[in-house]
Amino acid sequence: MATILILGAGVMGSALAVPAADNGHTVLLAGTPVDTDIIARIGKAGGVHPKLDQPLPGNVRPIANADLSDADVEAADMIVVGVSSPGISWAVERLAGAMKRPRRIAFVTKGLDKAGSSLVTLAGSLPSRLPQMSAFLGIGGPCIARELANRKPSACVYACADRQAAGEFAALMTTDYYRLSTTDDVVGVEACAALKNFYAIGVAAMQTRYPDSARADAQSKNPTAAAFTQATREMARLCERFGGRRDTAFDLAGLGDLHVTVGGGRNSRLGHELGRDRTVSDVMAKELAGETVEGIDTARMLSAWLQPTPGLEPIGPDRFPLAYAIIDAVLQDTPFKFDFATLTIS
Amino acid sequence: MATILILGAGVMGSALAVPAADNGHTVLLAGTPVDTDIIARIGKAGGVHPKLDQPLPGNVRPIANADLSDADVEAADMIVVGVSSPGISWAVERLAGAMKRPRRIAFVTKGLDKAGSSLVTLAGSLPSRLPQMSAFLGIGGPCIARELANRKPSACVYACADRQAAGEFAALMTTDYYRLSTTDDVVGVEACAALKNFYAIGVAAMQTRYPDSARADAQSKNPTAAAFTQATREMARLCERFGGRRDTAFDLAGLGDLHVTVGGGRNSRLGHELGRDRTVSDVMAKELAGETVEGIDTARMLSAWLQPTPGLEPIGPDRFPLAYAIIDAVLQDTPFKFDFATLTIS
Repeated sequence: MATILILGAGVMGSALAVPAADNGHTVLLAGTPVDTDIIARIGKAGGVHPKLDQPLPGNVRPIANADLSDADVEAADMIVVGVSSPGISWAVERLAGAMKRPRRIAFVTKGLDKAGSSLVTLAGSLPSRLPQMSAFLGIGGPCIARELANRKPSACVYACADRQAAGEFAALMTTDYYRLSTTDDVVGVEACAALKNFYAIGVAAMQTRYPDSARADAQSKNPTAAAFTQATREMARLCERFGGRRDTAFDLAGLGDLHVTVGGGRNSRLGHELGRDRTVSDVMAKELAGETVEGIDTARMLSAWLQPTPGLEPIGPDRFPLAYAIIDAVLQDTPFKFDFATLTIS
Repeated sequence: MATILILGAGVMGSALAVPAADNGHTVLLAGTPVDTDIIARIGKAGGVHPKLDQPLPGNVRPIANADLSDADVEAADMIVVGVSSPGISWAVERLAGAMKRPRRIAFVTKGLDKAGSSLVTLAGSLPSRLPQMSAFLGIGGPCIARELANRKPSACVYACADRQAAGEFAALMTTDYYRLSTTDDVVGVEACAALKNFYAIGVAAMQTRYPDSARADAQSKNPTAAAFTQATREMARLCERFGGRRDTAFDLAGLGDLHVTVGGGRNSRLGHELGRDRTVSDVMAKELAGETVEGIDTARMLSAWLQPTPGLEPIGPDRFPLAYAIIDAVLQDTPFKFDFATLTIS
């Protein structure tokens, strides 16, 4: 049995504690500075997370940021960073200050970072900030945290350039309901994890753009399926552009996670309103006021990056019509317009 | 402008008449022997199909089987077979008897045929039965007929070993709402078109198997996304086994059509009941009495074919866990059991 330190007591960090604890490991669930209230409400081992339905297993020990010692970090066999993207700097600094010996670290957190005129995933930007990290592991795939915490069957992918490291961590975490694949395409998994939020906005817009009163959910199906396929195609191309593999977009981290993300969440809610001809600023000022919609940040990042670059394949609205439609809606704050006529005979 | 003969006045044949007519072609919509009542109810050019919402365009001429002459067949520049699978023999015999000169024929009809101990798609079995056919074209992709007839945006793929032939037919048919890709992987498109019905049963079962009362649609999302991804993986492997290309499963004919098929239709309705632990025979005797559920036929065909074959890659429940789960439910009439634990660390 291992000692697993999870940084971040939001829903995803806390949900990952469930399979880890079900496997008999000792789990330390450490709150960030903004999680102090959550940790207090969980209270003690076996407490209930305020945003999850069931008590956490008895071998999950919640601990507030102020109580997390360097010795706790030192004692962990495996470290999992489960914060949302705004918390990543805190997590990196906390670990950089406390880690005395090399350790593998797994990240649920996703995001893109600028690297000169290019973009990199966290797999590219974090290693230099965490010299004691012996391996960066990325966690991808379709996983709504509350469902994992409720032990609903969930299939995810653990990625690491050192595939054996991915396999060893997967062996610690897998249960009969938490099924894990591994891959060495960590860049592809990280790229897809960021891109799927972005593309979910466009696919979800199709769910409301063409109402069909004859259906219980009032949705036409052909436009959504067309956009879902187009999103998958474009993700595969962008995945390669990031240095990952096409195939990764056609598996759990790509189309699988896109499927779940279109099915619910903030990116999808924004997309539904864009499909009704609302603008991004209008929705963000009303229904989604104060919320982080990660696909919006991704749109801004991609906009600067999707410029013609010597040596890379041609880009532009003809190759990425769905991406440009989403980018236009975000950056110009105009109604979302995805013109199916851009899907030309090819 | 061309003269296009569509054989079969069911919803799909009739829906294809809409973009053809919108492009200004003369369209002859010929009923099969079982379509006589439909043709009578459409009545004349500009009439309303009883299962579609809007009048057909004025340049679509409905014609009953009894009134279709060999000269009508002779006059057609392009022939489209739009019958459902039980009608394929009628269509083939009617055309074989009437065609005096070589013609390209496009098929919406999908199915698998036995060829010795192997299975082939219609692209493999029909050419020898239609010696006057100069090219077999397959139509695939996510397309609910009623939505196409209502001019909702739909993206499909036209496949032909002679890709130029596919492009020329696509040029006749494409409109601003009916968007067409082409491919020379006709075997792959035909294989996916049959397989997607089969896999939709298993994916739809996951939508009801794990209810989530906190959601408006009462569905957990992680299990469905996992099964959707697994279905896509297995379709890609089977597509190759049929002689098609993996990539075809990752595009409109594969995951795109699977997406739409899970979203509605008879295969999906059967799957929903299997997810509730009903058996196939029970559902087919009640809600789906008298209906054709194509995925059931595909399950029977695949069962015999998915045996170890010298020279082909290993098959079995470890490689195709979702396929075997569906086959078991159909052939043994036992409750559908998809064990997520079969998704092993890989």
